Amino acid sequence: MKCHLDCIPCFIRQALQAARFVSDDPAMHEKVVREVLQRAAGMDYNDPPPLMATQIQRSIRELTDCADPYLGVKQYFNRRIMEMLDDFRDKINRSDEPFETAVRLAIAGNIIDFGPTVGVDDAMVLDAVKRALIASIPSESMQLMRDEIEKAEKILYLADNAGEIVFDRLLIEQMPRKKITLAVKGGPIINDALREDAESVGLVEIVEVIDNGCDAPGTVLAACSSDFRSRFEAADLIISKGQANFETLSDVDAKIIFLLTAKCPVVAGEIGCKMGDMLVCPGKGFRVDEESSSKVA
Amino acid sequence: MKCHLDCIPCFIRQALQAARFVSDDPAMHEKVVREVLQRAAGMDYNDPPPLMATQIQRSIRELTDCADPYLGVKQYFNRRIMEMLDDFRDKINRSDEPFETAVRLAIAGNIIDFGPTVGVDDAMVLDAVKRALIASIPSESMQLMRDEIEKAEKILYLADNAGEIVFDRLLIEQMPRKKITLAVKGGPIINDALREDAESVGLVEIVEVIDNGCDAPGTVLAACSSDFRSRFEAADLIISKGQANFETLSDVDAKIIFLLTAKCPVVAGEIGCKMGDMLVCPGKGFRVDEESSSKVA
Repeated sequence: MKCHLDCIPCFIRQALQAARFVSDDPAMHEKVVREVLQRAAGMDYNDPPPLMATQIQRSIRELTDCADPYLGVKQYFNRRIMEMLDDFRDKINRSDEPFETAVRLAIAGNIIDFGPTVGVDDAMVLDAVKRALIASIPSESMQLMRDEIEKAEKILYLADNAGEIVFDRLLIEQMPRKKITLAVKGGPIINDALREDAESVGLVEIVEVIDNGCDAPGTVLAACSSDFRSRFEAADLIISKGQANFETLSDVDAKIIFLLTAKCPVVAGEIGCKMGDMLVCPGKGFRVDEESSSKVA
Repeated sequence: MKCHLDCIPCFIRQALQAARFVSDDPAMHEKVVREVLQRAAGMDYNDPPPLMATQIQRSIRELTDCADPYLGVKQYFNRRIMEMLDDFRDKINRSDEPFETAVRLAIAGNIIDFGPTVGVDDAMVLDAVKRALIASIPSESMQLMRDEIEKAEKILYLADNAGEIVFDRLLIEQMPRKKITLAVKGGPIINDALREDAESVGLVEIVEVIDNGCDAPGTVLAACSSDFRSRFEAADLIISKGQANFETLSDVDAKIIFLLTAKCPVVAGEIGCKMGDMLVCPGKGFRVDEESSSKVA
């Protein structure tokens, strides 16, 4: 998926948010905004949005001299959702369809994304959970996911954000863990999960965790490590969380099931859904017709 | 009210929207976005947001070689709301409190604002009307407005946007028209109403219409014509519609009653209300305490 011009103002907004996470100094915020405006004016707009976001976020880290502006919010949401882990696990285990409930929660968790959204708070997460639980997921998508998980020997689970990975943990608990490798990012980018996040929410103890060797949001295969690319190619099934993974992998001909909440008009437009829709989208590799690319809520 | 850094990405978004109104050519859209990013990087951020928007909109008119990018949407909304005029007038006349109902509709009409919003359509307008009609307006604000209109000899009514002025017409019909002068903008700026809009919705036939001699959104007094400034100073009461008038006049010590819908987080933050709130705000000149600066909905 190529960058839309609508993404540009969003990058400027993201830059300001990141600067505010790093410092309370309005002069620093202004410096970041001016510099990012200048750089954005000269960028190549043909790349997918996550690649542009990567360049902008690198500028911010350089300008603010801060290696990880989102560290605080990542730690906050890992901790907050871990505090709710047992409640959510109960909800899954008490439901008639624990796997389906876990999928719904994993999609709800994708709301914890500081890329497209102005801010995320506890209430937004709880609201997303509520919406995901009552949304009617087309049964064929859910069945496809069940069947493919059963058939697959190697499943690569592409994580998205910190905090959200606690919900991923709950879904992984409902899956055959031995088949699964969880991939996180290779370096800080927005609030995307890193190895340390997978460690702090106990994922490393229940599943193999690798990183993709790259500090872009989503999965820019060409920029990932060769180790990661081998794992990607060897996987029988890829479970892909979030918008940026969709933006970077929607054109890739592999067996990918995208789980995401559509949080910006550009991605919603690309998918053909509404903002806020919660989705289970089989990727190109399933060569499905339009109808079975299914929409939740 | 000074510009917030949050306004900058919004200006870039506005620029893209304006470029799309002028042309279908993506190369033109990209040219406008790149140029506006460049210019925004070097601007003075100490002015009120409407003054910055003015500079940016002038750039867009120059880059697109189009004197009035919003002409189409202005004409559309004048026509659409005129088609609903009789229905809305009936609603007012049949209500227990026609003046109050007209005030509510005038506030609802402020939703037709292509400054802060990504897009406006008929459904948004009808939804705003519905919300405004059931909102409980603090009675003291409404009474203040009634009393001040009765006391005043000269009332200056500052219009905001095309389409919205049809709702203003309905409110003016409920007021002593001879006291009222309606002021529109002196030149094209976003979808703000000009003399031709006041003409096309029949306002020139029921009330005196002047322009403020300026092509900035809101009322930047220093940039307005001396004729307009004299009228502003001579007025016993100013009824001010919309966000940009609030942004430019909130610090002015005059008897101003602001009627607006808060449509962006910056203005909502400044007022201390929520996004979407519909407001009747007595200005500084009333020297009211915090409590009587009242909030609707």
